[in-house]
Amino acid sequence: MTDSEVFETGSPLLVRGVRHRNRVVDIVVGDDGIIAAIGENAGQQHEADRVIEGAGRILLPGLVNTHTHAAMTLLRGYADDMPLQPWLAERIWPLESHLDADDVYWGTRLACLEMITTGTVGFNDMYFFMDAAARAVDEAGLRAQLSYGFIDLGDPGRREQEQRATEGLADAVARMNNPRISVAVGPHAVYTVSPEGLDWCAGFALERGLGVHVHLAETEQEVRDAVAQAGMRPARLLDEAGLLGPRTVAAHGCWLEPDECRLLAERGTAVSHNPSSNMKLATGRAMPYPALRAAGTRVALGTDGCASNNGLDLFGEMKTAALLQKFAWNDPTVLPARETLALATRNAHAALGFPGGRLEPGMPADLVLLETRTPCNTPLHNPVSNAVYACTGTVVSTTVCAGRVLMHERVVPGAGEILAGAARAAAELIAKSRGEADD
Amino acid sequence: MTDSEVFETGSPLLVRGVRHRNRVVDIVVGDDGIIAAIGENAGQQHEADRVIEGAGRILLPGLVNTHTHAAMTLLRGYADDMPLQPWLAERIWPLESHLDADDVYWGTRLACLEMITTGTVGFNDMYFFMDAAARAVDEAGLRAQLSYGFIDLGDPGRREQEQRATEGLADAVARMNNPRISVAVGPHAVYTVSPEGLDWCAGFALERGLGVHVHLAETEQEVRDAVAQAGMRPARLLDEAGLLGPRTVAAHGCWLEPDECRLLAERGTAVSHNPSSNMKLATGRAMPYPALRAAGTRVALGTDGCASNNGLDLFGEMKTAALLQKFAWNDPTVLPARETLALATRNAHAALGFPGGRLEPGMPADLVLLETRTPCNTPLHNPVSNAVYACTGTVVSTTVCAGRVLMHERVVPGAGEILAGAARAAAELIAKSRGEADD
Repeated sequence: MTDSEVFETGSPLLVRGVRHRNRVVDIVVGDDGIIAAIGENAGQQHEADRVIEGAGRILLPGLVNTHTHAAMTLLRGYADDMPLQPWLAERIWPLESHLDADDVYWGTRLACLEMITTGTVGFNDMYFFMDAAARAVDEAGLRAQLSYGFIDLGDPGRREQEQRATEGLADAVARMNNPRISVAVGPHAVYTVSPEGLDWCAGFALERGLGVHVHLAETEQEVRDAVAQAGMRPARLLDEAGLLGPRTVAAHGCWLEPDECRLLAERGTAVSHNPSSNMKLATGRAMPYPALRAAGTRVALGTDGCASNNGLDLFGEMKTAALLQKFAWNDPTVLPARETLALATRNAHAALGFPGGRLEPGMPADLVLLETRTPCNTPLHNPVSNAVYACTGTVVSTTVCAGRVLMHERVVPGAGEILAGAARAAAELIAKSRGEADD
Repeated sequence: MTDSEVFETGSPLLVRGVRHRNRVVDIVVGDDGIIAAIGENAGQQHEADRVIEGAGRILLPGLVNTHTHAAMTLLRGYADDMPLQPWLAERIWPLESHLDADDVYWGTRLACLEMITTGTVGFNDMYFFMDAAARAVDEAGLRAQLSYGFIDLGDPGRREQEQRATEGLADAVARMNNPRISVAVGPHAVYTVSPEGLDWCAGFALERGLGVHVHLAETEQEVRDAVAQAGMRPARLLDEAGLLGPRTVAAHGCWLEPDECRLLAERGTAVSHNPSSNMKLATGRAMPYPALRAAGTRVALGTDGCASNNGLDLFGEMKTAALLQKFAWNDPTVLPARETLALATRNAHAALGFPGGRLEPGMPADLVLLETRTPCNTPLHNPVSNAVYACTGTVVSTTVCAGRVLMHERVVPGAGEILAGAARAAAELIAKSRGEADD
């Protein structure tokens, strides 16, 4: 078998001799991308056209990023270390006002490449020109739940536009008929969407059977303003609109109170923890993981966009989450390694309604292999501890999504073209924002 | 030139066409390991036997780790997520009681390998069996300031032993006559060393012209106990003993008060910030960077040992430092990217009396090259921001210390043997601690 054959699709795949939960197993994947068998010597009973030798590798479920704005990779490093309002008003928004569909396509391709190279097999996205993002995800081979960032600022005309854009995305993705790509309604936050807008979003999600992706209780200001203007805290406001349910992912949740944690648990809503972004933007409080855990709320992990992180590596984000939670609540036992890994795998797949997150027959082959002949996995007293605390995403040697090999031995076919295309789009975006573009 | 020739020593080295501070430069290194020239086309006037093509790479000073316990790589992942006292008493100390010189040699070799692969060219170490550590550093080709961890717990007999061990290390390193390796006196902390022990350490450092490496104000308990027992806070206690000076590095400093920050600034003492360790062990407070900066104290970066981090990648540590400082002081402008990079480069070299940290003629060639054809450096709006916020140490393609190429295109000669030797030592250490060792 040549190296390139492993990247082909539509034939059975065998991963032989990987370490999984202190056993050495084979994993057999059918040509439908579903795990047919996993166990010791499982490969001996199955034929496979594509074989990956996994000896010396650790097998984990693929990671899932439950909150990002993927195309913001184009803004990586463009503005940092500024107070929130000038950062948004003077740097981020002016550049974003020049974004077009082509930029979003290349920014999302770059994000997908970064995710594939760091072991992420799916993500929850909110941005603009989302049909272009859908095309990028389709080509990259990842899973995604895509939402258009619905922001009406109380303006009925703008609300009408946002409704059309949301409907347009739902229709466009339905036409793609790609089982890896789904749509969520994306009311940005209670401070950017009117009560009428929130109501419409809830109704449209219900009508079409879509998920919901929303920012919630990121800053103290958001909570104060909601209480002042609507007489209730943001989680209650979303609940009144009918936006909290088991298909909803609420990002950040830094300023949630215990009764709000219980409300989210009752509704089955997941909270996406974004520790790096919260620290970089100085939200003033860490998401209350102990209270959410006590309430039984589903918590998953996210990176936020590259303007406020500035990367998409969920291995680094796992470490930051575990460290921040210990530090913020002054207790080194909070968010231990195994729970942290679940935030990026099992809980994250479940939050987005993805079928993976566990490696069992009948589940899709969404998996990664980790190199062990490397300092971060030496010694190997505890593979889960090393994955969370010692390694970064570059420890991933192989990334498989729905049975398709997206990276093997750190090679992603077409990576050079993606890096060049994204770099060109970023440079042109800067030029446009400076009024230097020829067109 | 074959790939292996670049690793040879004793001949001039040319790095051609690298990006440095928005220019494309050549850097010429003499056979003495000193930078002979740096500038546009500087390579055209110089002959070099070894040539590295740097096109598409970013040139930075090599990073320096100002606080670690290198051989604790052997304990990576051995115990996490526990309260401090049981973690130490039930897990770390029992295992450490079985350590021997061979373990420290292999643990330090592994640490050096991890540092080389993540762009670190030197470090400040404190541990036991330090002559074995010195041998590991000598072979690895890095710089280090080595200290024996002096702990007398108020016992005169033990103090005598610790003095002999400290003298023994100073003599052993003097005999090695390796200009990359220096010795510091290592009084562990005010709560583990008696006043007599602190006095002896200060006197010995003065007598031999050595640096000082000490833990300072890591926990609130340390401060409370010092005030209760000695009537003064730890920084003042060290100062009374004569241990604060321009050759002293004080690790952690989480609980420093503004007047202590000013005292450290007056003495020229550096504080080593270890954000990951402080967060993982939940020290309850972040090192007060704004107060230290206002006082003019030199601040540098460290990782602490692998039992409390669990890695040695200073790129990750830079990001964690910048994020923690913003979060802890509720201000996104605190510790911007360029200052963060200085904590790991210029300030760190200066804190340890290393001659590098700046890339100028006459300085040693302690430098790294960063890959740019990779997602974390795409786009490249701001190389410093990307280095601090987006990349991890695996972005480093080439590591050079004192003109010797220690890694090129991510290849470190002998890496496989080091990983195998360290893994074997770790396994034997566990076996010894369980009483299963044959010897």
